[in-house]
Amino acid sequence: MKPLSPADQLFLWLEKRQQPMHVGGLQLFSFPEGAGPKYIAELVESLRAYTQPQGPFSRKLVYRFGQYYWEDDCQFDLEHHFRHEALPKPGRIRELFAHISAEHSNLMDRERPLWEYHLIEGVRGKRFALYTKAHHSMIDGVGAMRMCMRSLAENPDVRDLPPVWAMTPKAKKATHKEDDWLSSLAHLSSGASKQISTIPTLAREVVKSIRRNRKDTNQVSPYQAPQCLLNQKITGSRRFAAQSYSMDRIKAIGKVFGATLNDVVLTICGGALREYLISQRALPNDPLIAMVPMSLRRDDSESGNQIAMILANLGTHIADPANRLELVKESVIDAKKTYSQFTPEEAVNYTALTMAPAGLNLLTGLAPKWQAFNVIISNVPGPQKPLYFNGARMEGMYPVSIPLDRVALNITLLSYVDQLEFGLTACRRTLPSMQRMLDYIEESILSLETAAGLR
Amino acid sequence: MKPLSPADQLFLWLEKRQQPMHVGGLQLFSFPEGAGPKYIAELVESLRAYTQPQGPFSRKLVYRFGQYYWEDDCQFDLEHHFRHEALPKPGRIRELFAHISAEHSNLMDRERPLWEYHLIEGVRGKRFALYTKAHHSMIDGVGAMRMCMRSLAENPDVRDLPPVWAMTPKAKKATHKEDDWLSSLAHLSSGASKQISTIPTLAREVVKSIRRNRKDTNQVSPYQAPQCLLNQKITGSRRFAAQSYSMDRIKAIGKVFGATLNDVVLTICGGALREYLISQRALPNDPLIAMVPMSLRRDDSESGNQIAMILANLGTHIADPANRLELVKESVIDAKKTYSQFTPEEAVNYTALTMAPAGLNLLTGLAPKWQAFNVIISNVPGPQKPLYFNGARMEGMYPVSIPLDRVALNITLLSYVDQLEFGLTACRRTLPSMQRMLDYIEESILSLETAAGLR
Repeated sequence: MKPLSPADQLFLWLEKRQQPMHVGGLQLFSFPEGAGPKYIAELVESLRAYTQPQGPFSRKLVYRFGQYYWEDDCQFDLEHHFRHEALPKPGRIRELFAHISAEHSNLMDRERPLWEYHLIEGVRGKRFALYTKAHHSMIDGVGAMRMCMRSLAENPDVRDLPPVWAMTPKAKKATHKEDDWLSSLAHLSSGASKQISTIPTLAREVVKSIRRNRKDTNQVSPYQAPQCLLNQKITGSRRFAAQSYSMDRIKAIGKVFGATLNDVVLTICGGALREYLISQRALPNDPLIAMVPMSLRRDDSESGNQIAMILANLGTHIADPANRLELVKESVIDAKKTYSQFTPEEAVNYTALTMAPAGLNLLTGLAPKWQAFNVIISNVPGPQKPLYFNGARMEGMYPVSIPLDRVALNITLLSYVDQLEFGLTACRRTLPSMQRMLDYIEESILSLETAAGLR
Repeated sequence: MKPLSPADQLFLWLEKRQQPMHVGGLQLFSFPEGAGPKYIAELVESLRAYTQPQGPFSRKLVYRFGQYYWEDDCQFDLEHHFRHEALPKPGRIRELFAHISAEHSNLMDRERPLWEYHLIEGVRGKRFALYTKAHHSMIDGVGAMRMCMRSLAENPDVRDLPPVWAMTPKAKKATHKEDDWLSSLAHLSSGASKQISTIPTLAREVVKSIRRNRKDTNQVSPYQAPQCLLNQKITGSRRFAAQSYSMDRIKAIGKVFGATLNDVVLTICGGALREYLISQRALPNDPLIAMVPMSLRRDDSESGNQIAMILANLGTHIADPANRLELVKESVIDAKKTYSQFTPEEAVNYTALTMAPAGLNLLTGLAPKWQAFNVIISNVPGPQKPLYFNGARMEGMYPVSIPLDRVALNITLLSYVDQLEFGLTACRRTLPSMQRMLDYIEESILSLETAAGLR
């Protein structure tokens, strides 16, 4: 029996019927060349042979002496975790999103290891999908991403990789060099796990540091975020939508305006949110504020203080895309300046609390009328080379995340080779027809391209 | 705003993550003659046009002043309720059960009308399935059955029937004659709804009446039920299995042994449970006791006291099928005798409490170490003529019910034309490989046929 860290327990305590605390990922694959009609059936059969889960995939929760522990599930039942499913015809992306929306709404069975692995056939165009789901108390986003990457191969000829649940757990100290950003983020979040147990002391610290920033800089103040449609109590049903956009298009816009990729992304999201809120007759006069996890430096040091959360002004009150981009850029530069003056401890403290939904929730819970931000927009670097799952090329991977009470929309972006993958997860009731955001994102990119003279 | 009856509220209060309180039904249909490749797509499209729910299908829960009310859902979202799904290949009944097992495990979204309607394509042999799910606080089994029958037609040429959620609600006082059993059961359960609010007074009454029976008759005493695998705490994941058996086979056995259909069914279940428990090395020395709702008389009177719950000895300690049948028969005759001495009020009181899972739960909760019975076996009369859904013949309909803490298996039978449909719903963790029960049921029928000299 291994006790859960206080941070991991938080995800269990904060979970409600209306606010499940699991994260997911959707991956889309194309059949390998020459795949026959039995390709999926054989793949499913080969996966079903891995009946012995490893590491965290073998452990279920037990509640004893007032806290949660992990222990091996001696009644492990693969059929509960590994699910072979299908889309109804015509098997478009639309049917796929409906399927993921429904599945992501379902609470997990707490009396079993907290993961599910859905292999979905019937996707049009010789494709299939994987939707993996794990409770946030079992794995964090970075861990999930790493594990997912380990279960795929850069070589399309590799066919013997075990599925993610049957992989030998990695030793704690990695011997080979990992992606810098990922490793520093992981380092940070493991530090955060320890520190988060000191909430609410930590929360007070954070509020204090936010107040200080407000006096000292032009940075967006948390008190500025307007009340808005996005910031209501949520219900238990989800809407998921996702799309791949060309990285080159977004980089080209950045080049013309002298803005970073992240600036452009925030501006695109601001434009799309503006159109969505107009369509719902709910655009506030004040600009929406996004909470954005961001890498502040990119040197070779391994310390964990290179990541912080910034509050960025999305300029949703501005119709002109170029002007909106200018405002976003300034607000990000201001925020970065402030954070570069932080001591490492301050930066870690701040980030530890705000990065995890648990922290967010506690924070907003401490001051229920105080809306620090309207939406979470994370940009996570993903694999730079094409990856393969037993010969099937991964065409796209999209994060499926956690909406929270008063933060009903989560936008997570992921880079993959030459694509930028947008994954939008929302409370379906609070944000009706949220899937239209995909069109608004495309329109927002187009309008920036026009403003940049690129079309 | 309309307040829920106390009985209906009970189903909400008793609901836990591990014990969802929704009921379901699975219906299997064959394509009409000449159905083209677009048959399902067109059916789905025609159903999606019914965006205006009627009666209970339009109402969601609100909790105010310490109790629950129904109110119209002004944000009704058909896509949440009506789901078009598909089985993975090869689309056997096995894949269908896996699908239903997973879906039936999921809690419903309480912030919407408490029903779902799943149209499932990809069933092998030119078939499709409907899985309907409703919270027990919205509808009881009898109401669900009635509604289902109204949404089907006896005439295969009828094509314009609206789906169940869009049917005009029936006036309270039915003007045409309904099936006797159904109408008396409905009458009873509406009486029960009023009376159940008097729990725990009622519970005391029931315990008293059970004690009296124990002194007076040879009836199975509730104190006799052995502790057994079936009577543990349950978890949230379900296993569903179902099968159609020929009514003629079962009637032929009854004829030889001078037993009722119900006696034979209980003996079959006893034999199957015996084999299952042996396979799990968990057969108790004492016989299992089933709780069985039963019609005591079948005259034309409309009073509600014709239905009672009896406790029947399943003879699981007896290997010989003929001897087991003899014991079951006697235990049922004894029970019926006792109940025929009851005043109408006593019978209704007893049944009201024991018929509803809520009552059961309270009852067992009152005396946690006291196991009144091991399993619930209900036999519900269904339609006697073939029914059609927009031209598609219904081949079978199977109840998907509610396992409870300490009653981990529910067996519900339904007659349909010349078939007897077994629906088994169990906690998947408490009862591993429960689907094997289907084979044991078949073996149990075969051994009775052999004993009867029928083969």
